[in-house]
Amino acid sequence: MQFLDIREAGFQAKFDAIVERGEESGREVEEVVLGIIADVRSRGDEALLEYTRRFDMLSCDAAGLEVTPEEFDKAMAQVEPKDLAALKLAVERVARFHEKQKQQSWISTEESDIMVGQKVTPLAKVGIYVPGGKACYPSSVVMNAVPAKVAGVGEIVMVVPAPGGEMNPHVLAAAKLSGVDRVFRIGGAQAVAALAYGTATVPKVDKITGPGNIYVATAKKLVFGQVGIDMIAGPSEILVINDGSGNPVHVAADLLSQAEHDELASSVLITADRSFGEKVANEVERQLKELSREAIARKSWESFGVIIVAGDLDEAIAFSNRIAPEHLELAVENPFEILPLITNAGAIFMGHYTPEAAGDYLAGPNHTLPTGGTARFFSPLSVDDFVKKSSIIHFTRGGLERVGEDIVRISRLEGLDAHGRSVSLRLKK
Amino acid sequence: MQFLDIREAGFQAKFDAIVERGEESGREVEEVVLGIIADVRSRGDEALLEYTRRFDMLSCDAAGLEVTPEEFDKAMAQVEPKDLAALKLAVERVARFHEKQKQQSWISTEESDIMVGQKVTPLAKVGIYVPGGKACYPSSVVMNAVPAKVAGVGEIVMVVPAPGGEMNPHVLAAAKLSGVDRVFRIGGAQAVAALAYGTATVPKVDKITGPGNIYVATAKKLVFGQVGIDMIAGPSEILVINDGSGNPVHVAADLLSQAEHDELASSVLITADRSFGEKVANEVERQLKELSREAIARKSWESFGVIIVAGDLDEAIAFSNRIAPEHLELAVENPFEILPLITNAGAIFMGHYTPEAAGDYLAGPNHTLPTGGTARFFSPLSVDDFVKKSSIIHFTRGGLERVGEDIVRISRLEGLDAHGRSVSLRLKK
Repeated sequence: MQFLDIREAGFQAKFDAIVERGEESGREVEEVVLGIIADVRSRGDEALLEYTRRFDMLSCDAAGLEVTPEEFDKAMAQVEPKDLAALKLAVERVARFHEKQKQQSWISTEESDIMVGQKVTPLAKVGIYVPGGKACYPSSVVMNAVPAKVAGVGEIVMVVPAPGGEMNPHVLAAAKLSGVDRVFRIGGAQAVAALAYGTATVPKVDKITGPGNIYVATAKKLVFGQVGIDMIAGPSEILVINDGSGNPVHVAADLLSQAEHDELASSVLITADRSFGEKVANEVERQLKELSREAIARKSWESFGVIIVAGDLDEAIAFSNRIAPEHLELAVENPFEILPLITNAGAIFMGHYTPEAAGDYLAGPNHTLPTGGTARFFSPLSVDDFVKKSSIIHFTRGGLERVGEDIVRISRLEGLDAHGRSVSLRLKK
Repeated sequence: MQFLDIREAGFQAKFDAIVERGEESGREVEEVVLGIIADVRSRGDEALLEYTRRFDMLSCDAAGLEVTPEEFDKAMAQVEPKDLAALKLAVERVARFHEKQKQQSWISTEESDIMVGQKVTPLAKVGIYVPGGKACYPSSVVMNAVPAKVAGVGEIVMVVPAPGGEMNPHVLAAAKLSGVDRVFRIGGAQAVAALAYGTATVPKVDKITGPGNIYVATAKKLVFGQVGIDMIAGPSEILVINDGSGNPVHVAADLLSQAEHDELASSVLITADRSFGEKVANEVERQLKELSREAIARKSWESFGVIIVAGDLDEAIAFSNRIAPEHLELAVENPFEILPLITNAGAIFMGHYTPEAAGDYLAGPNHTLPTGGTARFFSPLSVDDFVKKSSIIHFTRGGLERVGEDIVRISRLEGLDAHGRSVSLRLKK
């Protein structure tokens, strides 16, 4: 952990090293992934089964890749009733939030002779990638599938690697509760390729969302354009802005909830109150020992944990806007007062009783957020990601007469006279 | 041109050859572009000036790259008043349409103890790429800059190559009218790199939009993630659906307005009325001879023009949805009757008096549209592309008490106990 003063010499360079911790996929990974994609594209199921045997130690025929209704039933029965209730609550709350993002098709009838508008149409099929193996993230299923469901997507296809064939019942239960239509036990670049191009068994989709390792992320980047993808995610981060108010114990716990994710996670506190910062530093050390994932959290905190002392709250806010954090906690007395000043952040957790973990699971907003400063231009995953728009344009003959000469003029400026002719031919007496 | 029956053997294979006409950037182009990006990133203005000298035959110092206020004034004075009026009308109409896309920040106060919402914030700086050289597209400036302006973007930076230093006055006038803040006479991959990473002279932006050649497109794809980009565009296309009504002369003119763009453009008519299709075929031949860009249009029409006879209108619509055309004309008697059936299209031109050219210039909707079937998942360029969203989450202590146990449960399912602790520590009595 570094304890820095924002005004000390070399501060920016020290902080930049944290920001740039993300691994770049590099040419070697790209070559491997390109090979896998080409292979699945040309040989379909055959290649998919081979890679699944090799990487996931799972041998089955093509039909065996799909999770059966009986497996779903079994998984649902395995989940403890209170856990099931918690997952249901998450699905309900996430659905309720995302319902508010839905946009309507619209037309403008302001002009009597020219009508314009926008048609909003759900995507026909989407693929959701869910990590498997050691990790088990039912919340990832909820956060990807529910917005797709709310958007009205025709078919939601989930892929999740099942090393040795084993599936996590909580992940399957979350899929069931979230409205996933089909689940395939495949993963890695081969799963992304199968979704992008389709095989005899796996349907070709229009968009692929969801987190994965570097092979999955690289595969998504490489099939972008063939299908849509969500944002390109790097390692996760939290920034806590503090004004001296609140409890250092809580802030330390929030920093650690980020640090336990993985060793590349970064947890940063910026406070105008040095002694608050010192208390948080001590608390983190104390709490670290109590964590089941102590080793990971400690590595993350030691490598990428930072406590920064700023001159005042304004300086802290300016810093935050500069780095555009994925998760931003406003651990201040009056968070709504400074909300308008926050210009770059994935999600903003307001006040002393809103830990990031609440947003991760069930507050309602999506937990798929732009990382590594990309909140400057990317948005959280939303219903918008699962619809597309078509412009609607309708001219009457009178409308075309009214603006026809201007269209012809612009077409001439561009040297595109066939454009102008398509108008003038219609207006010829 | 091919005249096909949708039910003939081999139809799909023949049509697929048209769909797959787009050039892939290939590894060689990528290597060149990667080199240029790395060079501009490390040597800044020095590299930018070198490439500009080499590729655009323009020698100047760094300050000379920026267009001066005097140059703007001169350009405005050079434009004919009626052309200026046409450009103004385009800017006004495009602005009016895009105003309707603006979304508000919102909060939900449905629950007394948990508040959620979404903050909408304009991007701080965006870069707009405008092609230069032989081509001159003031409409491209309007269609990229106006949505950014409407969105409230802080600074709009335009780049346009100026071979030998020459700038087109209509492009500069369009920039002025559209609210572009700064213009640099640079182009190619080096301009994209300068916008993505910044140099001493060119500001680093948050997002880059606008069309360009294969080097520009490849550069945009490679800097994606460092900055946002708009969609990845391939060659342009139009599909006209016809029910036998309307005038073959008009439809032929519309097909040619697409064909004149470039030799890779594709113009397709699908009609349930064979004799209408035959008339259009004859009309295209007749009109081709009258075009200033006859050679380009003829090459495009011969290579990628298709007239398809369908069994009925439903079959034509199903075909259209399958190929997801960039431009779709519903040259039918009652276009609004079939609008709900159209699920994939960039822009839909309704009825016999709405030529594509009207939408290209000034109907209001954007002319930057998803090509090559990507309308399955991409949308037209819009105000949404120039804002980003941040989730807002606020819990009171009571709210956290209400759902805290469920958060802890889900965190346990995922093996992330520090997540649960950040909640339970706050609720400890």
